[in-house]
Amino acid sequence: MDICAVNVLTYEEFLEIFGNVVEKCPLIPAAIWTHRPFSSLAEIEAHISDFIDSLSQSGKEGILRCHPDLAGRDHLSGTLTRDSQEEQREAGMTTLEHAELSRLTRLNSAYKERFGFPFVICARMNSKAAIMRQLVERLENSRPTETKRAIEEVKKICHLRIRYIVLSDVPNKL
Amino acid sequence: MDICAVNVLTYEEFLEIFGNVVEKCPLIPAAIWTHRPFSSLAEIEAHISDFIDSLSQSGKEGILRCHPDLAGRDHLSGTLTRDSQEEQREAGMTTLEHAELSRLTRLNSAYKERFGFPFVICARMNSKAAIMRQLVERLENSRPTETKRAIEEVKKICHLRIRYIVLSDVPNKL
Repeated sequence: MDICAVNVLTYEEFLEIFGNVVEKCPLIPAAIWTHRPFSSLAEIEAHISDFIDSLSQSGKEGILRCHPDLAGRDHLSGTLTRDSQEEQREAGMTTLEHAELSRLTRLNSAYKERFGFPFVICARMNSKAAIMRQLVERLENSRPTETKRAIEEVKKICHLRIRYIVLSDVPNKL
Repeated sequence: MDICAVNVLTYEEFLEIFGNVVEKCPLIPAAIWTHRPFSSLAEIEAHISDFIDSLSQSGKEGILRCHPDLAGRDHLSGTLTRDSQEEQREAGMTTLEHAELSRLTRLNSAYKERFGFPFVICARMNSKAAIMRQLVERLENSRPTETKRAIEEVKKICHLRIRYIVLSDVPNKL
């Protein structure tokens, strides 16, 4: 799928394909569809990034709250989005040993208790060990610092989801 | 469920209950959870309204694009949200005669062609005849006027969804 093909999509088609590039926030791709025609994938990403940056602190926290816990309830109940499922599987989050899962669950709870949103990290860019280490480290951040840090991860996830969508169709076109 | 019960919900519980008060936009209730404790249902609504008003024109259009067509593809394929299904059923949108459905489909297409988002109306506040009449009338609006008009309908739908959630649980508490 090259950018010309993206530019002729109706908003319904665009949402079917790009609706979850920010987890459970179809509002965002639905909004930036207004700005087509896009000159490149990078422009789509830039519009999404601008949209996120334009939100208030609570709006940014809202985006984070739409994300699932790593190896959490949605994984156990089979209600993860397909994107999250694949990302968590690749990072080894779906095959944790009992002790690892216990530790992650405990750290996740502490994180949510402290910040009021779940720990978000681009799983595809991190090993299991790196995820655990960053969770411990980021627990020490202030709330504004951590919101900013987590939103950076949202943008990395979005970047890879967009690449994955487009490149899995027609490689090397964009 | 009284407002004290709402105020002690975790963000996950809050999203399970209020996640679809704006159609397919869990980001919005997820964001306004930050502002708890709420003094009343009206305060929850006011925060949602403020969030929507703070969005750019394209952001507002994004909200509208997350809505299904009346008696459209999602109804036919059974993929309407439960909220939309009930609202469309009550307004007689799911039992249209062939000629009515043809006319509605034609008008919906013309509307989407003109504005780039679907026709949104608070079905629970309108009869079938009133919906058809307003669709014809609103097709004449300019794009900024119509966006504003449609967002008013989003807020009416949200108002009724919140009332329905809370009152269907413990009547007359709020």
